[in-house]
Amino acid sequence: MSSDKNTALVDRIAAGDTRAVARAISKVEDVSKDASQLMKKIFPLTGKGLIVGITGAPGAGKSSLVDKLAQHYRQEGERVGIVAVDPSSPFSGGAILGDRIRMQTLGLDQGVFIRSMATRGNLGGLARTTVDAVSILDAAGYSKIIIETVGVGQDEVEVVKAADVSVVVLVPGMGDDIQAIKAGIMEIGDVFVINKADRDGVNSTEKELEALLSLATREDGWHPPIVKTIATENKGIQELAAAIEAYRGFFSQAKSGDGRRRAIARWRILELLRERLVLQTLEADSASEKLDRLAGEVASRQRDPYSAVEELMKGGQ
Amino acid sequence: MSSDKNTALVDRIAAGDTRAVARAISKVEDVSKDASQLMKKIFPLTGKGLIVGITGAPGAGKSSLVDKLAQHYRQEGERVGIVAVDPSSPFSGGAILGDRIRMQTLGLDQGVFIRSMATRGNLGGLARTTVDAVSILDAAGYSKIIIETVGVGQDEVEVVKAADVSVVVLVPGMGDDIQAIKAGIMEIGDVFVINKADRDGVNSTEKELEALLSLATREDGWHPPIVKTIATENKGIQELAAAIEAYRGFFSQAKSGDGRRRAIARWRILELLRERLVLQTLEADSASEKLDRLAGEVASRQRDPYSAVEELMKGGQ
Repeated sequence: MSSDKNTALVDRIAAGDTRAVARAISKVEDVSKDASQLMKKIFPLTGKGLIVGITGAPGAGKSSLVDKLAQHYRQEGERVGIVAVDPSSPFSGGAILGDRIRMQTLGLDQGVFIRSMATRGNLGGLARTTVDAVSILDAAGYSKIIIETVGVGQDEVEVVKAADVSVVVLVPGMGDDIQAIKAGIMEIGDVFVINKADRDGVNSTEKELEALLSLATREDGWHPPIVKTIATENKGIQELAAAIEAYRGFFSQAKSGDGRRRAIARWRILELLRERLVLQTLEADSASEKLDRLAGEVASRQRDPYSAVEELMKGGQ
Repeated sequence: MSSDKNTALVDRIAAGDTRAVARAISKVEDVSKDASQLMKKIFPLTGKGLIVGITGAPGAGKSSLVDKLAQHYRQEGERVGIVAVDPSSPFSGGAILGDRIRMQTLGLDQGVFIRSMATRGNLGGLARTTVDAVSILDAAGYSKIIIETVGVGQDEVEVVKAADVSVVVLVPGMGDDIQAIKAGIMEIGDVFVINKADRDGVNSTEKELEALLSLATREDGWHPPIVKTIATENKGIQELAAAIEAYRGFFSQAKSGDGRRRAIARWRILELLRERLVLQTLEADSASEKLDRLAGEVASRQRDPYSAVEELMKGGQ
């Protein structure tokens, strides 16, 4: 019955029904077997949309940039999905606040689907639920899917790396620190944006970034372009869209594309494996009582966590 | 032999040998069986030090605060361990830069041990390696162990929650946004710091924070104090240390302490379980060839990730 229900849901998703999309995303946020069946049916429908990952430090103006890029795509007749990754943080308004602000500019447009992904407890990984949500939007015919995330945290960086095109957003005046961002940045960005490009220091930031980019050679031979934008004034958005499209074109031709797709697939499998194995172990007979008992023993220092895990794993097989 | 080597290493750790501590932490950053043996031997030596988690948004002045708190503890004759959690990020100088700056102020002091933990690939979780590093410092007789982390990202927040005392650092002028931080903050902070307390807006930030704290009642009945500091001028540090000590005293008496210790133990077990189960599956005969093949099939869209994981799990048993 659950399988039939999933078939009906997938049919509605394929037809672009936004309520079905919302329901399917809620399903993958739970870690149920049902969600696994659903995703198996979703997968053959995916691979059509362009997935753009946008990351940048807090204050870089990512949200405005994403909104303006979405509007640009809408004007070209594309349907746009936005997935904002919002790791549990005491320092952000989180999913709800972000959505509320965003809904004022984009929310009334039926061609835009917006969803924030937040951490929900320990078992379902944020990275896994995010890539599943992107797949659902892809299956529903959203031709541009934008993942927005602050570039801090293990999961968040992985999610951006899993996109078709990764965009790193900087702002002028990072000046002295730009050397410091070197290591991580080269690995992640296919396209670089200097936003708030009306600010002082834009030229020196650009020069330093150019110097950094010229130092490293990417395996695939791509030279990441630098685009200057003023998102709040809608400037440079068309150039950004063009740079994204250019990398898409390059990537679809490049031999190295296979390697990247393989690495992404490998990462997705491992994320999911991790989650499924824990669920399987905890679903075993009396495993949850055992976990409670072991947690009590570790808490009272009668036992170390490592041997507790060994006992759980013995029982799980 | 490896077990004998671990015994010798543990003896040196118990004697407070800093090179042995550094070596042990490097070991737990690898996900080897050897590290598991080591940690089992470490565990009985732990439980003596006070573990303080300090979190705050970028720019809140966490590092200065941690340094000054460490100096304060040193003046009281305590040995201090500092573990800085540094998730892979394109926007931070990361482990190396942070260490270099910090070493200038604290590094020559033999009574301070400093270590940054960074992400190393997919298999070893940052949260797990961080709590293991803290245990090693605890076993080596560091009486105060400070975990410093930016409060963004799933793992980072969990690590702070796993400390004995969690300190949340704010700065004046968060003004309008303070409502937005409500949800996450109440859950995490045992002690609140308003740093840079010479800035405009300190009183309104304090009032808003007080109002927020008065709205929620903690299960354990603790009322988190607010401490104002100017870390760069060494002001308020003694008050912070006193507030930390006050919560420690409260917690060790409170009935609810058991519940929190149990929740932390449960989380540690699950983190470790996740890691071990994946390793076990990938160690099975020909599992890594299988993973490569499945990754290739998912990348070329012949197969969905969910059924790939099912095949891996079948083979692993």
